[in-house]
Amino acid sequence: MSPHGHVDPVLLAEDRPYPDPAALFISGDHYVTRLLHAAGADLAVLGVGQSGPAPDPRAAWRIFCEGWHLLAGTATRAWLEAELVELFDVHERPEAANADRLYDHIAGQLDDAAHRPRALYHRMGIEVLATTDDPASDLAAHAALEADPTWTGRIVPTWRPDRYVRVRRRGWTDALAELGTAADVDTSTYDGYLDALRRRRDHFRAKGATASDHGHLDPGSARLAPEDAAAIFKRACAGDASEGDATAFRRHMVGEMARMARDDGLVMALHTGVARDHHPPSAARFGPDTGHDIPVANEFTRHLQPLLSDVGDDARFRLVLFTVDESTFSRELAPLAGFYPSVYLGAPWWFLDAPDALARFRAAVTETAGFSRSAGFVDDTRALCSVRARHDVARRVDCGYLARLVAEHRLAEDEAARIATDLAGEAGRRVFRL
Amino acid sequence: MSPHGHVDPVLLAEDRPYPDPAALFISGDHYVTRLLHAAGADLAVLGVGQSGPAPDPRAAWRIFCEGWHLLAGTATRAWLEAELVELFDVHERPEAANADRLYDHIAGQLDDAAHRPRALYHRMGIEVLATTDDPASDLAAHAALEADPTWTGRIVPTWRPDRYVRVRRRGWTDALAELGTAADVDTSTYDGYLDALRRRRDHFRAKGATASDHGHLDPGSARLAPEDAAAIFKRACAGDASEGDATAFRRHMVGEMARMARDDGLVMALHTGVARDHHPPSAARFGPDTGHDIPVANEFTRHLQPLLSDVGDDARFRLVLFTVDESTFSRELAPLAGFYPSVYLGAPWWFLDAPDALARFRAAVTETAGFSRSAGFVDDTRALCSVRARHDVARRVDCGYLARLVAEHRLAEDEAARIATDLAGEAGRRVFRL
Amino acid sequence: MSPHGHVDPVLLAEDRPYPDPAALFISGDHYVTRLLHAAGADLAVLGVGQSGPAPDPRAAWRIFCEGWHLLAGTATRAWLEAELVELFDVHERPEAANADRLYDHIAGQLDDAAHRPRALYHRMGIEVLATTDDPASDLAAHAALEADPTWTGRIVPTWRPDRYVRVRRRGWTDALAELGTAADVDTSTYDGYLDALRRRRDHFRAKGATASDHGHLDPGSARLAPEDAAAIFKRACAGDASEGDATAFRRHMVGEMARMARDDGLVMALHTGVARDHHPPSAARFGPDTGHDIPVANEFTRHLQPLLSDVGDDARFRLVLFTVDESTFSRELAPLAGFYPSVYLGAPWWFLDAPDALARFRAAVTETAGFSRSAGFVDDTRALCSVRARHDVARRVDCGYLARLVAEHRLAEDEAARIATDLAGEAGRRVFRL
Repeated sequence: MSPHGHVDPVLLAEDRPYPDPAALFISGDHYVTRLLHAAGADLAVLGVGQSGPAPDPRAAWRIFCEGWHLLAGTATRAWLEAELVELFDVHERPEAANADRLYDHIAGQLDDAAHRPRALYHRMGIEVLATTDDPASDLAAHAALEADPTWTGRIVPTWRPDRYVRVRRRGWTDALAELGTAADVDTSTYDGYLDALRRRRDHFRAKGATASDHGHLDPGSARLAPEDAAAIFKRACAGDASEGDATAFRRHMVGEMARMARDDGLVMALHTGVARDHHPPSAARFGPDTGHDIPVANEFTRHLQPLLSDVGDDARFRLVLFTVDESTFSRELAPLAGFYPSVYLGAPWWFLDAPDALARFRAAVTETAGFSRSAGFVDDTRALCSVRARHDVARRVDCGYLARLVAEHRLAEDEAARIATDLAGEAGRRVFRL
Repeated sequence: MSPHGHVDPVLLAEDRPYPDPAALFISGDHYVTRLLHAAGADLAVLGVGQSGPAPDPRAAWRIFCEGWHLLAGTATRAWLEAELVELFDVHERPEAANADRLYDHIAGQLDDAAHRPRALYHRMGIEVLATTDDPASDLAAHAALEADPTWTGRIVPTWRPDRYVRVRRRGWTDALAELGTAADVDTSTYDGYLDALRRRRDHFRAKGATASDHGHLDPGSARLAPEDAAAIFKRACAGDASEGDATAFRRHMVGEMARMARDDGLVMALHTGVARDHHPPSAARFGPDTGHDIPVANEFTRHLQPLLSDVGDDARFRLVLFTVDESTFSRELAPLAGFYPSVYLGAPWWFLDAPDALARFRAAVTETAGFSRSAGFVDDTRALCSVRARHDVARRVDCGYLARLVAEHRLAEDEAARIATDLAGEAGRRVFRL
Repeated sequence: MSPHGHVDPVLLAEDRPYPDPAALFISGDHYVTRLLHAAGADLAVLGVGQSGPAPDPRAAWRIFCEGWHLLAGTATRAWLEAELVELFDVHERPEAANADRLYDHIAGQLDDAAHRPRALYHRMGIEVLATTDDPASDLAAHAALEADPTWTGRIVPTWRPDRYVRVRRRGWTDALAELGTAADVDTSTYDGYLDALRRRRDHFRAKGATASDHGHLDPGSARLAPEDAAAIFKRACAGDASEGDATAFRRHMVGEMARMARDDGLVMALHTGVARDHHPPSAARFGPDTGHDIPVANEFTRHLQPLLSDVGDDARFRLVLFTVDESTFSRELAPLAGFYPSVYLGAPWWFLDAPDALARFRAAVTETAGFSRSAGFVDDTRALCSVRARHDVARRVDCGYLARLVAEHRLAEDEAARIATDLAGEAGRRVFRL
């Protein structure tokens, strides 16, 4: 049950073999490329971002094997070990000496039927996999899968509108035009823009989407008066929006889309608190999402107050909160989820999706919010092969936490068993309305 | 030893039977009502706040029993289990199927002598119970208990002046008038106002109070020049105080009351960092303190600097700090308490008064501040029946922490035993001057 | 391997006996004096700061022994126990009853050859000890040790320029003059000032320095245009710099010195986030660094962005980050060190250099940054006698963490053994280029 992630649906629609081990385990996984880069590797050699694919996959693989020790103690190590053993029958510790042999061993399996994306999907026991998609997307890969009688899995799109609400970003007016074309609506006015967004939500829902996803620096949600929002929209179209305008409009739209979510039932997932592209020279060379996004302190209590005051008590609305700032677990997130029927606790995100951090999350939120306010685990991965391993780690940590409560006489064993099962899948299915 | 809490002294003065199980276990306990509300229950049905008592107590009780599983893993669950077993001989897990039977079982005991408030007080082994009271209060219930030769417990009032220092809150001028009447002083001037506050402190001290309690959004303590404070006071009386005035005056008064505390010896307890009434529609319907107060990040180092620079090194002054922001444990609170003779660490507060959070508190502060700077456990509860259970949990956690230090050869066993005893009662008695 | 600390090199150059037990264990150790002060001791009696040495060392020692129980559970207790047992053969728990006897026992050993500073250095197995030094220092003690054929240890200076970049602090123009004299450069111009700083770096490098150290309220690093920096410098020389000027100049110089570090290879250590001299009356009476510096929340992501964008990806540059704000461990520090080749994680600092805090540090950073981004342990102590004990505690905690990973099947035993050895010394040697 993978209600949120970034696997490319084309991978499953086309079901082509992976080209090489580097493409499978290195180039697209910035958990790996970050640490190799910190140790001195050139991101271009690893095939990162717009530089990719790796110009010499075997060279990238050698760097990966030589740097295997750098991953000691990380969550990535645990996932990779599971993937290598379970999916590719690799039982050796990668190192310089066996790099070429392991490369050949894995490369030799990539054309097998058992190692194609669809087969991997089934071997890992995935029931539902949500992708993340642009509202203007034609969702062609989803449609192709839907139309394919040989495909028995379930891939659902997720509506991710961020680039349409950042009015000062380069490309915003182009995005607006694309949105208008996709929705068949004139998006040159604020009302048309809202209408187009709503139509694309309807389109996504018709194609199986149950959620939207929103990633911003902060979870600000203060709505503006419609005429003020429209005035900013107009300035933005003319290229005259100020930085303050852009922030106010983005926060307004988060509040506005919460109302849309209340009306149409798409579950709203919020990922906030990360400064993107921290190293501009790398962003210029390799593009966005290339491993140097760095978290900042986050504030939910005040930022979400307008939104929750507006729709937080409405049974139709649902909000799943993600954070990379642990200090908010007990201070803000658990108290919010412990009162508002709409608010659910997303799994620890990104730098926190590792065994100890997952355990700290449970210990920090459960005493206030119990287990029923948890949205289960979310892998949030681009790496299809890592889905099962990530969920497996999270399940083990949850079970370890539950076992401790039982051992400390804080929970009965039958309750712990029921909760373990729920967190392992049902919670995600229920909260994300899958 | 309960040096701070919110039990209504009338309960003990009148010693009437509790009306029904919902009144005892649900309506007044927002630890319970919050999670039931998050799961969809209507606060009105549960008898929350100004909507209470529960219109149909048995209906509220059924919701509580059906929602028992929601409390799994929470501190509330542990307390309720102890209360049900130890005070009401309930050994079953509440659920839909036994809700009516448990209701009848408990309701049938409420008229017993052993289940009246005074009996519960003694059965729980309470030595001192502090209430929280308005400075204008006549403390009639305290007086009645004092005058009653059959009452052998000890209930002391606590001076809580918050509504007199929030000059823009609705009702402030009424409060001022009440204060003037209670103190028999003209409070229409700033000097009269200060004089009235001092007189009511003296009155409280004469009635057994040893502490004042202060709850604000931040622990700001910068004093103003007297003429500036008087000017704001004058504007406030005329309804002309700005938001900035109100904040400056409130912080000034915290500093001013610290001086009063230095002079008269009332221990100053500070509870800060919670945004009250986060969901205005619920506040409008049910009143304040109805389960949607949400913490925010807190800052002590700079905010308390003026106050501590002024009286922090004075042996007569004593300040007990409470927080719901864990990140301040090691960063600010332990360092402050580890230097200033006046500063003591209050027990983890509110969302943090649970086993794992209590353990995190000890681990975070002890390495810097040792045990001698701890003010012991404070239950801070409205629910009389939960006093013993809450202290019991805190004692077990403290003993667990001490046992770990012994096992790790970081503390001798005899020292651990002495500290365990001290934290279990003597620390509270000593620090709160009881 | 002690790559950062505050032991006075004169101690080793002169190798005189310690005067008395109070000078050895109390007066200079604000970990001790803080808690004794919190319990009511007068800092003057303890011999703190400019009030020292203790007027009556035996009286100070008695307070220390009577207050031994105050240290229960602190890191200081663990260090002191080790020092007393291992270096002075004290096997009793200090208390009022044995205070005089212990005093005499220790005092009787101070003249022994085995208890002189150089002997202690060797008995503790120290290989390298870095001191912290003023850029204008003639490094005479270091030169004397270098010239002494009987000295077989290694003491290296560290370049600490803070007082030269705080343009509004009293004494800044005097400092400027001293710097000019030391560097034989006219420091009345901004260019001369930069030149003098560079020359003193060269001088320190020639005398064995491998690092600079920088302590500021925040890690701001935004560089100014040279002409703007020069203009502030000019205003500062005239005594006309504003508070804003001072902050901008200080941050600019952090960025500027990062460039110097890139060019000359001195490793840059950054200690930020502590409000100094929190209790002005004590600062006035006893001077700076007398136990009432209190941490504040810290922010690295945005503050370091200019510096890291400029030189963060340069293989010659190296930056070691220290914090007393735990919330930054997983949120900012591990992500930064996990991408930038130049960024290393300093050991938990000051209030966090204790067993549980060290364990929380490993658990918070390793899952993101692994072990290779750690700069090993740093004792940061003024107390020579505590060096071994502090490293011993840190090693035990690291080994405990590694053992847990092994027990949880997250790390192989041979890898854990290799990492334990590395963290115990090689990491510090490597990262600090010793």
